[in-house]
Amino acid sequence: MKNIIVLGSTGSIGRQTLDIVRAFPKELNLIGLAAGNNVALLDEQINEFAPSYYYSQKSYTPSNKSSKYCSIEDMVSIHEVDLVMVSTAGSVGLIPTLKALQHKKQVALSNKEPIVMAGHLIKQYESEFGGTLLPVDSEPSAIWQCIQGESNNVRRLILTASGGPFRNTPIEDLHTVTPSDALKHPTWSMGRKITIDSSTMMNKAFEVIEAKWLFNMDYDDITVMIHPQSTVHSMVEFLDGSVKAQMGPPNMRLPIQYALFYPDRKSNSQIPRLPTASGYNLEFLPLDSKDYPCFELALDYARKGGTFPTVISAADEVAVQSFLDSKIRYTQIPKILDQVSSAHTNLINPTLEDILAAEIWATNKAQQLVLAS
Amino acid sequence: MKNIIVLGSTGSIGRQTLDIVRAFPKELNLIGLAAGNNVALLDEQINEFAPSYYYSQKSYTPSNKSSKYCSIEDMVSIHEVDLVMVSTAGSVGLIPTLKALQHKKQVALSNKEPIVMAGHLIKQYESEFGGTLLPVDSEPSAIWQCIQGESNNVRRLILTASGGPFRNTPIEDLHTVTPSDALKHPTWSMGRKITIDSSTMMNKAFEVIEAKWLFNMDYDDITVMIHPQSTVHSMVEFLDGSVKAQMGPPNMRLPIQYALFYPDRKSNSQIPRLPTASGYNLEFLPLDSKDYPCFELALDYARKGGTFPTVISAADEVAVQSFLDSKIRYTQIPKILDQVSSAHTNLINPTLEDILAAEIWATNKAQQLVLAS
Repeated sequence: MKNIIVLGSTGSIGRQTLDIVRAFPKELNLIGLAAGNNVALLDEQINEFAPSYYYSQKSYTPSNKSSKYCSIEDMVSIHEVDLVMVSTAGSVGLIPTLKALQHKKQVALSNKEPIVMAGHLIKQYESEFGGTLLPVDSEPSAIWQCIQGESNNVRRLILTASGGPFRNTPIEDLHTVTPSDALKHPTWSMGRKITIDSSTMMNKAFEVIEAKWLFNMDYDDITVMIHPQSTVHSMVEFLDGSVKAQMGPPNMRLPIQYALFYPDRKSNSQIPRLPTASGYNLEFLPLDSKDYPCFELALDYARKGGTFPTVISAADEVAVQSFLDSKIRYTQIPKILDQVSSAHTNLINPTLEDILAAEIWATNKAQQLVLAS
Repeated sequence: MKNIIVLGSTGSIGRQTLDIVRAFPKELNLIGLAAGNNVALLDEQINEFAPSYYYSQKSYTPSNKSSKYCSIEDMVSIHEVDLVMVSTAGSVGLIPTLKALQHKKQVALSNKEPIVMAGHLIKQYESEFGGTLLPVDSEPSAIWQCIQGESNNVRRLILTASGGPFRNTPIEDLHTVTPSDALKHPTWSMGRKITIDSSTMMNKAFEVIEAKWLFNMDYDDITVMIHPQSTVHSMVEFLDGSVKAQMGPPNMRLPIQYALFYPDRKSNSQIPRLPTASGYNLEFLPLDSKDYPCFELALDYARKGGTFPTVISAADEVAVQSFLDSKIRYTQIPKILDQVSSAHTNLINPTLEDILAAEIWATNKAQQLVLAS
């Protein structure tokens, strides 16, 4: 029996994590749920799973009185917790991630921003305190699966990207793209922020940064290829040229379950299987980063390290929200990222305080630029 | 330093094994070479590698006098031998394989017939005496690579097959196929027997049987899919639906080297790499076994076990050679297999002697049928 808590239980990954808990009631014991503002769904979840603890950002009293309020920081510190699923959105997962590692927990991280902002601190906490970071995102999960039994033989990571809804849209037509156009992801059904980030390939830049930290790779040894079918979730090339790919229909329950039961695998009818009785076709195309200005810009700054990844992440959060709110055009997203980043004075090897300060600075700067646009 | 001997050193796999030895002169020490009739090439190899021992089926005296004649059975028993590469053709590898396992050697098996004929004995020798069987064929090597760190989680093996040169040839046109048509393999450059076996998919049936023994699977959990590009060498589906595929340009040096250095991997410029700067396309199609009568017939009999796999293998050896010698038509290959198999009285759980007797019986029976045709 593994005792788990889910941070961000009402989001897309949180809800699918609860599907896995439903499928394995004897193996997984939910002892805490934390949500933001969707208290109606949180209340349903508390009624169903009867967790000992809950947290909600919005003030609320559960109909099930046996569940006790608990701050997120206290929840990740509870002695009997084995695994913390960090499926929050944005930077809110950073401090709980660090705190959970400090308390030697397994931390299943679906939320990219913490590792993008503070990869060096997260890795430092992991080695210093003995917690374990487990990838949940489908691409790093694919890499993690491919390197089982092969950890010292990796030459290169090949992250796949669907290319998003605008892969075949001429760059000059992106000016008039609407939020609903950008929310039509060709293969994955995900939250709104990550769907927009997928269309700009900012999400892929975040995954490159994430993979660098999770798998201790140089940026030069991480390649992105366009793979419109999203069936191969990523690949690893080994020293001898052999390549392993992890495949499956696009569905987050597989990487979630893999993290929850690692290193075991379990049969689960909720997870779709690749066909063998019908055919399929997989395309792989080189990425032309000129087609995706956010991707190129994010990685140019990420390579400089320091507080730049935080600044990019915070500016992107504001820019994407502003686009979704129809305050800026789609093509203004990379412009805002560029303007915020070029105005930033980088701090190398930042502390947690430096990172949080850079986040506030970049958020404010991006908001000013949105207002002025 | 690993001491190796190569049985079948002048064949396609033998020559490529020597390429790997050339690339790693400090890691691999060749102490024995065994060949059939190509003594001119054997002599060159002896001059280059100066092995302590040699064997040739054809009587011959090496120009390098320091290499001593040694029977194959004695060669695989030499104390300092660590690994035996069995890259002979046909059933000749069977007894050396058993003998090498008896002497606790690593046995890299590129030759399928021994395991097709005597899978139960080979596995029994492996567990009884403590030798280790290492796959060399690209498909079982792919599966072996995919299951590293995952041995208890396998649900299904998916073997890929190029479909051969007649994948798009209507079955009624196969009547007039010539040996040179059948020797044009679309993706792999291999020996003559295996190339014809690839065109009939008999080779794939042998791989299914091989995979059953090597990976301890039921026939029902081994699926074959047509994959014309021969880039994915095979796949493994795990309990949770996750699929791992092993990929690379079609080249035997990779699986040979993997077996020689397992579990290590080493960089080798002789092995081509998958591109990332140019695109590629991978098709997967269900296999319609009606299109490949040899495949269907071989597996129908293989499922019955006993001496049937030996009979199928021996009859195929005669039928393919007779086709290459223009004694029978391409479409007579499955007919001879069917006639020999249906005339055979199966012996369950056969001894080595039973297997060798069944081989002689089937060879004679097939030769009679060729003469009578």
